[in-house]
Order: sequence, then C-alpha cells, then structure tokens
Amino acid sequence: MRLAELSERSGVSTATIKYYLRERLLRPGHRVSTTQAEYDEGHLRRLRLVRALIQVGGMPVATAREVIAAVEDDSLDHHMRLGAAVWALPHAPEPAGTDAVDDAARRTADVLLERIGWTYGREVGDHSPAYRMLADAIAGLSRAGHPCDPEQLLPYARAAAQLAVTDLDMVEAYETPEEQVEAAVALTVLYEPVLLSLRRLAEAEESNNRFGDGD
Amino acid sequence: MRLAELSERSGVSTATIKYYLRERLLRPGHRVSTTQAEYDEGHLRRLRLVRALIQVGGMPVATAREVIAAVEDDSLDHHMRLGAAVWALPHAPEPAGTDAVDDAARRTADVLLERIGWTYGREVGDHSPAYRMLADAIAGLSRAGHPCDPEQLLPYARAAAQLAVTDLDMVEAYETPEEQVEAAVALTVLYEPVLLSLRRLAEAEESNNRFGDGD
Repeated sequence: MRLAELSERSGVSTATIKYYLRERLLRPGHRVSTTQAEYDEGHLRRLRLVRALIQVGGMPVATAREVIAAVEDDSLDHHMRLGAAVWALPHAPEPAGTDAVDDAARRTADVLLERIGWTYGREVGDHSPAYRMLADAIAGLSRAGHPCDPEQLLPYARAAAQLAVTDLDMVEAYETPEEQVEAAVALTVLYEPVLLSLRRLAEAEESNNRFGDGD
Repeated sequence: MRLAELSERSGVSTATIKYYLRERLLRPGHRVSTTQAEYDEGHLRRLRLVRALIQVGGMPVATAREVIAAVEDDSLDHHMRLGAAVWALPHAPEPAGTDAVDDAARRTADVLLERIGWTYGREVGDHSPAYRMLADAIAGLSRAGHPCDPEQLLPYARAAAQLAVTDLDMVEAYETPEEQVEAAVALTVLYEPVLLSLRRLAEAEESNNRFGDGD
C-alpha cells in the first residue's frame, strides 16, 4: 500500500508517519520509484505499536526506539525477546541516591516476591526496571506516611498473577513469534489505563456499598 | 512544630513547603510571632498527601488543589467526600471529538459495567473521569489494532473489584472521616505504580514459566 493508505488504515497522519520514519521507529518502505514507496501489513502493525507506545503510553521517542529494537532483535530466543521488550518499557526515574527508606522498600519487595513465589523475579531483582518501580512505589508509600508490609501487598501481587495469565493467553493467541512480542509490549502498555480506571470505578462502587445512603 | 521540624518529619524541603503554602495546597500555620508560625499533625498529614499527589502521582498543582478542596469540603457527607476526592483525580486528556471508535468503546464499557454488576458506575457513567478514562483506554486498544470485547475485560474488572475491597479496608482502618478521605486519595494514587509494577513482574514470571528454557 502507499503512504496515504497506510495513514488511512492506521489513523496516523502522513506527517507523523514521515516523522516516525526519520526517527527510525518504522522501517523504510519498499521503493517502487524515485518518489514512491510501498508499505505492507508489517509496517501497519509496527505503526500501531509505535502509536500505542508514544500516544497511549506517553513514551519518549528514544525509549520507544529501544523497545522497538528489542522487539526486532532476532538474536534472542522467544522468551528473551518478550522479556527484553517489556524490560525496555520505561519506569519512574531513578532516585538521586538511596537512603534507609529505599533499603527497607527493597527488603519489603524481596519478602513479597518470596512469599508469592516469583523465583524469576527474585533472581533478576534489581536489574529489572519493574522491580525498581515496585521498590520506588513502596518507598513512596512510606514517605507519604502510609508504610506497608509484604502482607498488605500480597492481594495486589495475587491479582497481578491472575492477570498475567490472562495477558499471556492473549499474547499466545497471536501466531508468529514477532506478532507475539509486539502484542506483549502493546497489551502491557494499553491495558494499564484499563486496569487503573477499573480500580477507581470499583473503589467508587465499594465506597457506595459501604457508605452510600442506599438510595 | 516549627517549619524546620515539619520539613524534617515530612522529608519535604522548606522551600517546597513555602511554595505549597503560597499555592494554597497547605493551610497557613498558626502565627506565634510576626516571623514564626506553628504547624500541627494535620499540616504534616496534609503535606504528605500533597507530596503523594504531586511527586508520586505526577499531578499538576491546579489539579492537586481541586483534590484537596474536595478532601476539605465539610458540606458533603462521608461517601460524597470520598467520591468527590477520588473523582477529582486526573485522567487522560479529553479527545478532540468523538468518532465511531469512541462510541463503540462506550458501549463496550457499558456492557462491562452491566456484566460485573456495578450499578453505581452505570448511573454515574459519563460524568465520572474514571469512566471516561476506561472508555478512552478501550478506544486506544481498538486504534492500536487490539480491539477488545466486554468478555475480555471481565478478568480485569474482577481483579479491580477484589482490590477495591482491600483498598476500602485500608481506608476504614483510619479513625476520623477526614483521615479516611485523605487516605482514600493517597492510597488510590500511591498503589497505582505498585499494581503496574507487580503486573509487569507477574508477566515476566508467567512468560518465563511458559517460554523459558527451564534453567
């Protein structure tokens, strides 16, 4: 298909597609003349992924490029590619230094992973952005005057474990390894606002059940 | 306590506290002389909440001020104050207009709320930022080439319903209505990165179980 059709089918303007091409977030089309290029279904899929990362996930272009590079890295086996791609997803900025609160947060995170039985997460530990994001979140709770212990976090970890089964089932429904890696990244990012909005709605519901006047 | 002690106990610099005072995110201290003011435990709690909203939640000052105003509004009953405060929490910016994808997303959201039995959410519907955030997230999935139906969203809604029970139990553990409203807002915001990081860790775990080489 031509650029105009790629734009039409993806809902991304031609100006934005040209920007993504310049930024190497999208591979060049197949040249058919000096002024025209052809794009295929792979370009469309990749464009949708880039759009999900940048427009929905709010990811900076440089980070999106790293995620795409991990998606494309044929040298890794399937699990490694899945891992590397989700791995490259951004997390909260590193704290300037670590203090006693950060150290305590890491210990809380470690005990939680041990209690829930996530041996892979325990091995990878501090190297994983998701682990650091968890430790930072636990430290944030503590600094805001709401310290938590591993016991209080267990319901969240159990819910996450259930959802991961749902997430991976959706990923496995895609046929090729490349599609699966793309889907893993896109679904991880795209379901985050789904989950957060549902939690707020559920809180309103539960609050109404407990404190509402029953009208 | 004096400003220096408030800074020490909250971990927020005196310059930032003065900025929050100017921005009316924090009530003035009790004047004890022309140059000094006293702060109490209420100031410390409020400061921790403001910090949670702005530094952890990444909320703009103007939005934080709205949330704080809702927390402080004595004219509302307890459920309304809880609702209004969580209500004022920010969501994704409004789309410029609505198209067929947005309309379909709202129908998907409505069927989901009906299926899970959230009657309060159904009544409030479009007036709730959380509902609009959900509809936008569903539209985003569709535009990224991963359309979903209510059935696929049910596991996420069920997990959210379970977590809301945990969340409200934590809120009810606080004694006064004012502390409960503050805790509802703070815990909603502060547990969001906890939940997202745990989901990513759980995905890595599940992916390793399914595709890892078993080392």
